[in-house]
This record gives sequence, structure tokens and C-alpha cells, in this order.
Amino acid sequence: MTTAETTELLADIHDLIRERERDGIRGLAEQIGPAEWADLVPQLEPAEVAVLLQWLPDEEVPLLLEELAPAQAAAILRTLSRNEAAGLLQEMDPDDAADVVEQLPEGEARDILVRMRAADASEIRDLAAYDADTAGGLMTPAFVAVSRDATASEAIAAIRRLVEDAETVSYIYVTDDARRLLGVLSLYRLLLSPGDTPVAELMAPHTVRVRADADQESAARLLTDHNLIAIPVVDDDEHLLGIITEDDVADVLEAEATEDIERLGGSQPLNLPYRLASVPLLVRKRIAWLLLLFVAQAYTGTVLQNFQGELTTVVALSFFIPLLIGTGGNVGSQTVTLVVRAMALGEVALRDVGWIVFKELRVGLLLGAVMAAVAFGRAAMLGVGPDIGAVVSLTIIAICLWSATIAAALPLLLRRLRIDPAVVSAPLITTLVDGTGLIIYFEIARLVLGL
Amino acid sequence: MTTAETTELLADIHDLIRERERDGIRGLAEQIGPAEWADLVPQLEPAEVAVLLQWLPDEEVPLLLEELAPAQAAAILRTLSRNEAAGLLQEMDPDDAADVVEQLPEGEARDILVRMRAADASEIRDLAAYDADTAGGLMTPAFVAVSRDATASEAIAAIRRLVEDAETVSYIYVTDDARRLLGVLSLYRLLLSPGDTPVAELMAPHTVRVRADADQESAARLLTDHNLIAIPVVDDDEHLLGIITEDDVADVLEAEATEDIERLGGSQPLNLPYRLASVPLLVRKRIAWLLLLFVAQAYTGTVLQNFQGELTTVVALSFFIPLLIGTGGNVGSQTVTLVVRAMALGEVALRDVGWIVFKELRVGLLLGAVMAAVAFGRAAMLGVGPDIGAVVSLTIIAICLWSATIAAALPLLLRRLRIDPAVVSAPLITTLVDGTGLIIYFEIARLVLGL
Repeated sequence: MTTAETTELLADIHDLIRERERDGIRGLAEQIGPAEWADLVPQLEPAEVAVLLQWLPDEEVPLLLEELAPAQAAAILRTLSRNEAAGLLQEMDPDDAADVVEQLPEGEARDILVRMRAADASEIRDLAAYDADTAGGLMTPAFVAVSRDATASEAIAAIRRLVEDAETVSYIYVTDDARRLLGVLSLYRLLLSPGDTPVAELMAPHTVRVRADADQESAARLLTDHNLIAIPVVDDDEHLLGIITEDDVADVLEAEATEDIERLGGSQPLNLPYRLASVPLLVRKRIAWLLLLFVAQAYTGTVLQNFQGELTTVVALSFFIPLLIGTGGNVGSQTVTLVVRAMALGEVALRDVGWIVFKELRVGLLLGAVMAAVAFGRAAMLGVGPDIGAVVSLTIIAICLWSATIAAALPLLLRRLRIDPAVVSAPLITTLVDGTGLIIYFEIARLVLGL
Repeated sequence: MTTAETTELLADIHDLIRERERDGIRGLAEQIGPAEWADLVPQLEPAEVAVLLQWLPDEEVPLLLEELAPAQAAAILRTLSRNEAAGLLQEMDPDDAADVVEQLPEGEARDILVRMRAADASEIRDLAAYDADTAGGLMTPAFVAVSRDATASEAIAAIRRLVEDAETVSYIYVTDDARRLLGVLSLYRLLLSPGDTPVAELMAPHTVRVRADADQESAARLLTDHNLIAIPVVDDDEHLLGIITEDDVADVLEAEATEDIERLGGSQPLNLPYRLASVPLLVRKRIAWLLLLFVAQAYTGTVLQNFQGELTTVVALSFFIPLLIGTGGNVGSQTVTLVVRAMALGEVALRDVGWIVFKELRVGLLLGAVMAAVAFGRAAMLGVGPDIGAVVSLTIIAICLWSATIAAALPLLLRRLRIDPAVVSAPLITTLVDGTGLIIYFEIARLVLGL
């Protein structure tokens, strides 16, 4: 949904609520998906949200809450009576409900949970025990499982019984008596088999699975790598705890890509849409890195002060400072984004550092050679003489090699230290190359110009 | 899959093929998902791939080809006889098969298509007519549709007939006699209804749909926004042409995120994994932007030459050049990545330019004020006197405001010119701010120092 469409829809919703047009809201609700509601609701007044919750068809409200950020959904629930809140949580997917409950003050959460069906409440309590960014935090217990002794007909009966609560019935999991995962069975296979076939004959053994304490990104990638609709989550003893479904995974992958992009740009991740980020929040998320880079870059002043003699003798050397450090920063930015993205996609790891650095050295050499030729021409245009032109060209090649090397190696080495490689942002590489590049520049100048 | 695991698996595969261990390969195949094969195959020798295709279970080979880049799959098909190639294409999902056929030389494609079942061949020909990056290029015709006159039992019979070929039977589409899309029906609903209920009573009308010529990213986002398993694709007259399924969409969103990250880092998108990108390819994808930025940045030399007088009088001014332009670049990088990502996620559009620039101005002012204070301290440490300290501090504030403003406005204005906003990379903003920042610096210096 583009902002233009959002603005139009918002205007419609404001009007409909002001004019008490309940049917109009219900008409809109037929066209608006839950994720679109999630974009709209944060922009409504609290009083409008209250009206909306009353007017929307009963089955839509839990879907809407599932799509909101858990903190927002919790804030809405707190405006309702405990009984209403319990009723809504009960209808939500348990994994989303658990995320919301974690955002409520402890006393309120307890008050609401005791008003729910005992089975639902205990499911939510179990799920809330897992970290939000693990496979356990992402999973839902709303799956269909049958015993290995069941027949195809019995499995179909189980599906009919569970279909309304299950997040997917495309896969039916087969477990032993202790609920340990044995295999999986597709709905299609089931529909095509005679009713008295034992499920043990139909199931695929060696099912892909993920541990509850695995991080959510690796669970997401496992699911997409195997083209699955859902992936089962187990504990250390292979007990089936829940499943992670494809729609959760798309959200995880998109959120992780956004975080990486924000880090590469030199911010801490916002963890909420740009539109909703306040000015103080944006400043908080950005100032720490800026100050760090600022302090790191301040040493370039010291470098230049040390070469004050050279600068006074040949003022023309200063003309090329922004060009040289800028080019080093650009080459480094390119390298670091390619390497960090390849790491995020699981394509490369620390043991690859050798060939990656070698590859980037060759790329840096070729890029440097091309730009050195252009730089020599540019120096001639500025009329600074061929000796300074040679200094600039040599420096370009050296800086390209240096910048590509540290930009390639640093993210891999940081991963080794268990630091997220995406913190090696383009601005960080630029800053590192600025000062070291200047040292390279003036040392080459000393050598060539005999200063 | 990490590189370590890949390397181990590759070693196993090399060994198994050398020792003619057909059963070993089949054993491995049970544990390796199609997407993992797709990582491995490009790293095998052509002769090894040929052996692998013979040894893998027949049903695995088309799955593997579906996961490969279309050009790679086409190269493998060309090593086989026309009949073998036709047999494999026939078993692939038609949308993937069409992508591969587009990569074959025209004569060969025709030769292979005539060897296929006529119905399959014509499906592939139809699909190959759509651009690869449109909804039409992403869709598959492997869906289940029934007439509005059918009953629930008839719909279930249709599913049983089509289940093996369909990509999903979670949704059954309902059409009129001219195959125009009327509505959709979930498998679950069908399973829970009496057999003689007309599907017209069960279906949800006003189904979300997408035109075949819509771009693939907007189709992907529509599907995820509505939490769908599949989305129907129609022509201008609402005829149902195909469906796009969730697994295609995860690939599209991930590929688009990778492209945006690469562009933001100042490269053209590689369109293939970093590991597989050769040194000449990396140089080609990177040199154009580098040269453009280099030329753009070369004017900083002209700016400095123009202020040669000031630089000679107060050499200390040059100490702060890297710090000032670096800080401007850092603030701009942060802003541009936040805004470009928000645009990619559909959160903001051109009409938002007003409040975004206003927000970034306030953020820039606060960031600038904090860093101006630090810069004044740094100037004192370098012993350059409070007047130069004041110049540096004022310049920092001005550059932060200026950098945040153009980094916020430029991506939105470029979208207006139908240029991908992600081309406004961090390096581009840095380069733009370098020269203009220097002009700001020296003008402030002239004013304050009375030069």
C-alpha cells in the first residue's frame, strides 16, 4: 500500500467513524487485508480505534491484532475490559497472542490469562517462555499431529477436527507415543491414498526440523531453502513443540533485511517503521555511531597536522584530499555491502576469508588502475604538474587495494568475535580509510617529490 | 547452509562420484533440499553434473533444475539429448520451465518444445511471453479452478484430479463460463461443508487479485500484506491466468532486498551470488559508479583551488577537511538508507516529501548540535584557537542540516523521475556533500575569520 492510498483510506475511515457509518466500515473491512489494517490503526486516534474494534466483524479483530506490533496490540487491549481482552487473545494465533502478553504488565497479564480457557492460557504461557527472536518464539502450537499407529482415514478425521484452529493442514506430523517427531505427511498424499493405509507407510521420515533455541533467521532460511510451507520445532529430545509457517518467515526475512540495511547505513536498527519513528528516537538511534565515527575521524586532523610542513610547501597536495579519501571510501562501501549481504544470505563464512580477500585485491587493483589513469588526467587539468599527478595516481591504486582488503576482511573477522558483521557499515569503512589513506598519500608524496 | 557445510558436502559428492557410489548419492539426496542442491551444483564439474542427473531419483531432478538460476539450468539441459531435456522440462513447474526456455537459443527451444506434451508446451510458450519481472512472469498456471455451478463434492473431485500438478490446493478459484475470476474458496472450508453445497455459497467474493503486467514486487507485497498462500493473476478482462505462490514471493522479496543493498553500497546489482561473481564481473558492476563518483568528486579539487588563498593563510583549516566532509557523508548515509528502505517497503511516497524533509531537518539540527560541541573541544585539543573552533562547529551544524535534507529529498524526487531511488547510494550522497560542504566551510571561515 502506498502512502497515497493510505492517506485516502485514512480520510475515509475518519469520515465513516465521524458519521457513525457502521456499514461503511464493514464494507471497507471486506477490501482491507489484516496487514493493511496494521498500517492504518497506528495512525488513528485511540477513540477511533475503540469504535473500530466494536464495529469490525468479530472474526476480523483478532486478525488485526495479530498484525500490529505486539506493543501496540497490548496498548489496545489495555483499553478494554479484562474479559474482552481475554476473549480476543483467545481467538488470536497463540504465537502472536504470546508476543502481546509479554508486553503487558505482569499483573494485568495474569488477570487476563485466568479469564481465558485453561488450555489456551497454558499454551500462551508456554510460548511466552521462549525468546522472541528464537524459533521457539516464532512457532505456533496450532499444528495437526497423529500417532504413527493411525490410518489415513483417522488422520483425515483429525484434520477435520483441528482444521479451524490449525495454521496449516498441508502437513500432518507423525509422532510416537511420547510425542517425539517421526515424520511428516502431506495433505495431498493423504487425500490420494486408500483410507486404511497406515500413516507410517505414507510419511516421509528424516523430516527437516529446527530446535526451539535456534535463532529465528536460521529457522526462516531452513524453511525457504527447502521450499516448505511449515517447519516443525522440536526440543533437545525431538519432542514436537510447534511449527513455524511461511507467513511468519517472510516477515522475519524482511525485518532482518531492513535491520541489515539500517546498520550498513550507519544507524542502529529502528525496529519500527520510519513513519512512526519520532525525531528523538531517530537521534538516539543515530548519534552513538556518528559520535564514534566522529571521534575516529578526528585523528585525520592529527595526521594532517603532522604533515603540515609538506602541506605548506606544496599546497596543491591538499586539492586531492577529498577525492582520494572519497574514492577509498567508495570502493570500501561497495566491498563491505557485497560481503555483508553474502554473509547474511549464508553464502560465505570466516573460513572463506582467504579467497574473498584475494578476490577483492584483484578487483581493487583493476578498479584502482582505471581510476589512476583518470586521476592523472584530472591532475593535468588542474595544472599541478606531472609529479603531483604521479603521486595522486599511485595513491589511488594503493588506497583501492587497502580499502578493498579491510572492507572484505573486517566483517568476517568481527563475526569471529561474535559481533554482527552488519555493524561494519559503509560509514565505518570510510572513516577507517580516511586517515590511513592520508598517511599513504603523504608518504608517497614524500618519496616521489623528495620532500 | 554455511560455507563450511557446503565445502564438506562438496567433498562428499566428489568422493561418491569418483568411487561410483550411486547409493551414497541417493542417500545424500534424502537429506539435501532442492535449494541446497542449487548451491552445490554450480560448483561441480560438468562431467559430475551429468553423472548426478543420472543417479538422482527421477523426481528430484526437475526440483533441482527449478532452483537453479535459469541460465544454469538451460546450460545443463543443453548437455542432454532433446528428448531427455523435453522430459525434464515437462516435469518442472511451468513457470520455472518457461524461465529456462527463455534462456535457450531459439532453435533449440523450439526443438525441445515439440518433443513435449502439446498442452505442457503451449503453457510454457504462453508464460514465456511475459516479462520475467512482472506478475505474469512469476505466475504458474498450476492452480485449481471450478465453475460457479459446481458443488462442494465436485470441487473435491477436481482437487483429487489436479492435486499432483497443482502448486497449491489450499485455495480453489471459482470462475464463470468465460473463465473470469469470481471468487475463492479455501480447502478447509470445503472439507467442512456438506457435499451438495454449491461452491458459489462457500466462496469469498471480492478476491484480492493482481494484473499480469503488474511488477513482481508489488504482487509479492500484496500477497504478504494479505497473509495469503497464493494470489490469483488476471488479465485486463479479469480472466484468471495463473497464481503466484508464497515460495516464489519469498525469493522475490529477498532478491529485491539484495539488489537494494548492493545499490545502496554503490554497485550495480550482481544478480548472482557473490561467490559465483568473477573478478571481471565485479569490476564491471562497480567501475561505472566509481568513475561517475570520481568525476563528480573531482570538482572538490576545483573548490579547494579556488580557496587556495585562504588555505595558504590559515593552513589549520585543512586539518578539518576530512572530518567535516566525513561527518556530512555519515549523516547523509544514515538518512538515505532509512528513506530508501521505507520507500521499498511502501511506507512513504513522493507526497510525503514535506514531512520527511522537515523531520530530517530537526534530526540533523540535533545531531549537528551535539557534534558541534564535540568538534569545538577537538579544535581546542589541536591548539588551533577558538576562532577556528567556532568556524568548525558552525560548519558541522550547517553540513548536517544540508546533508540530511538532500539525502531525504533526493530519493523521493528521483522516484518522481521514474529512477529507482536505491541508486541514491550512500557513496553518491557522500560525494554530493563533499564539495558543497567545502564551499559552506570556506564561506563560513571567510565570514568569521574576516579573510
